[in-house]
Formats: sequence, structure tokens, C-alpha cells
Amino acid sequence: MPHIELPESMPGITAGFAFRPETATPMRELAHVLLHTSGNEGFSSRDRELIASFVSSRNTCYFCQTSHGAAAAHLSGGDAVLVDSVCRDFRTAPISGKLKALLAIAEQVQIDGKRVTKELVEEAQKCGATDIDIHDTVLIAAAFCMYNRYVDGLATWQPRDAQMYSQMGKRMAEEGYSKP
Amino acid sequence: MPHIELPESMPGITAGFAFRPETATPMRELAHVLLHTSGNEGFSSRDRELIASFVSSRNTCYFCQTSHGAAAAHLSGGDAVLVDSVCRDFRTAPISGKLKALLAIAEQVQIDGKRVTKELVEEAQKCGATDIDIHDTVLIAAAFCMYNRYVDGLATWQPRDAQMYSQMGKRMAEEGYSKP
Repeated sequence: MPHIELPESMPGITAGFAFRPETATPMRELAHVLLHTSGNEGFSSRDRELIASFVSSRNTCYFCQTSHGAAAAHLSGGDAVLVDSVCRDFRTAPISGKLKALLAIAEQVQIDGKRVTKELVEEAQKCGATDIDIHDTVLIAAAFCMYNRYVDGLATWQPRDAQMYSQMGKRMAEEGYSKP
Repeated sequence: MPHIELPESMPGITAGFAFRPETATPMRELAHVLLHTSGNEGFSSRDRELIASFVSSRNTCYFCQTSHGAAAAHLSGGDAVLVDSVCRDFRTAPISGKLKALLAIAEQVQIDGKRVTKELVEEAQKCGATDIDIHDTVLIAAAFCMYNRYVDGLATWQPRDAQMYSQMGKRMAEEGYSKP
């Protein structure tokens, strides 16, 4: 049961957003820029959603890991196995060297930003990462340390309903995050 | 030295904001709502800045701890000793029981949102905290887990210059965060 009186029947972060629209607007907008509108061939929305799901898995936030994992799967033509492999061990997952290098940076940010080293950044650059790619990776990882704590810290309702997450992921992947 | 080519001579988060205005806007707006415009007698801007500085101290983020500590001090009539006592041991600091109960919630969120217990929330409610107060405490603590990782994860320039932080804190306390 949620710690405060959140709107009923709204899962995860959507309940917090409905409870406090003033903070929901910038939180939605940040996710929209980072995950949806900034995606391009070099660092796609799918890759950004994979990083979001991966960081959420490290923070053991079921709602965020599953919903952003579903968004990443939708953007991979329904490949949920890929998402699982990234969360389990991204170093052996069937993804590009560049995405592995970015995930290695995100992995450290999830623990503490100070753990990002010059070597990790240089490795990403060697794999073709731009300064914007590295910036956005650091910020996606940092932002999910916020979203995850928000969702769990309010003890929001996080249903175990694969169909719901699949629909939610499809909508997130196609429409982004700016609309309530 | 920053990991990517950030604008020079801009300290801490201001360099990240200048580098990527698209993400700066919602990040500024979120801080503005949480720390500046939502403050009232029951849960003032000073108390919100104290929570921000406290969480940043737990994440050992020098820039955020010092700048938000300076904002809290400015809002306390220049009482920097109070800020230090909250960061060192809030349980013995000269603050209200309500703020201590909110800090106890923030303390757990900084580690993991799932560590917030029903008992901690009930204690805050007994001290007069509303649902909005508890919501905002969880989100301030969560948000600083983002800001701190962002500032440190980019390896931003964090000067040791007390005068600079004092001026910055005064401006933050008086004007808020929405303007660049």
C-alpha cells in the first residue's frame, strides 16, 4: 500500500504524477527529451530505453525496469530476450561495442558519479560516442536513480501484469513522455 | 577536468546546463517547484534546502552540498552552523521534530526508496507532516540522487571558494532555479 493517499488503480510513477502535477510536468519533459526526442541512429531511443531499464534493474525498481524494458523491446521489434540479456550481463549481450561502453558508464553512475573514469569515457569515444552521447548516458543513469527512488519511496502499486507493461511500453515508445 | 568538453569557468551543474539546454530546462523547473515555489510555513524553502544539502552530503557531492547549504544558510539569516549540524547529525540538530522525521525519510531514500517504512511515514505524520510534505521529501531526496550523480558523473569543475558558494546560495534562495 502506498505511504500516502495516491490516486487508486494508477501503477508506479503515474500515481505520483497524478498526485503532484507541478512536479510531474518537468519529470515527464526530462524523460521525453532524454529517451524520446533525442534518439538518432547513433544513439537511438531503443538504446536509451535499454540503459533506463538496465539502471532500474540495478536499483531493483520493478515498475521502471519492466516498463522501460517493454519500451526497448517494442523498439527492437518485440525482442524481450535482448532486454533480459542486457540487464543480466550487458558485456555478453548482442549489442554494439558503443552501447556496451555507454552501459559501462551508466553502471558506475548508478553507484556514484565519481566512479566514472577517464578510461571508461575514452573507451566510449573510441567506439564512436560523441560528447552528447556520453552526457546523455550519464544523465539517463542519474535520472533513473531519481525515478526509481520516487516510485519505490512512495511505495506505489507495481502490478505483476505482463500485458499491462507491454501496452505501456508500446505507448511510451511511440508517443514519448510529455503527455499525461 | 570534465569528461567531455563543457563550457569553461562554469562550476558544477551550471556547466552541464549550458552544454545541454534541452535537459537543463526541466531539471531547473523541477528544482524550482520543489525547493522554491512550494515552500510554506509548514515546510519552508529553508527546510527543503536543508534536505537537499543533507542528501548531497550523503552522496558526497561537494558542489550540491555546498551551494544548497549556502542557500539554506541564507534563508536562516546566515546560520551556516545549523547546516553543518544537520549534515553531521540531524537527530541532534536544533530543528523541529517534523523536519527530523522528514530527514529520516530522506536518509533512507538516498540509499533506496524501498527502505522507507510505514513507521517512518507515521512518525512524520505524528509530527504534523502532510501527504504533500512526505511526497516532496521523497522527491527532493530522489532528485538530488540525480543532480549529484550528474554533477559528479561529468566530473564538473567544483571550485573550493567559500565566497562563490555564498553568493550562489543567496541568489538561489532569493530567485529560485527557473532562470538560467
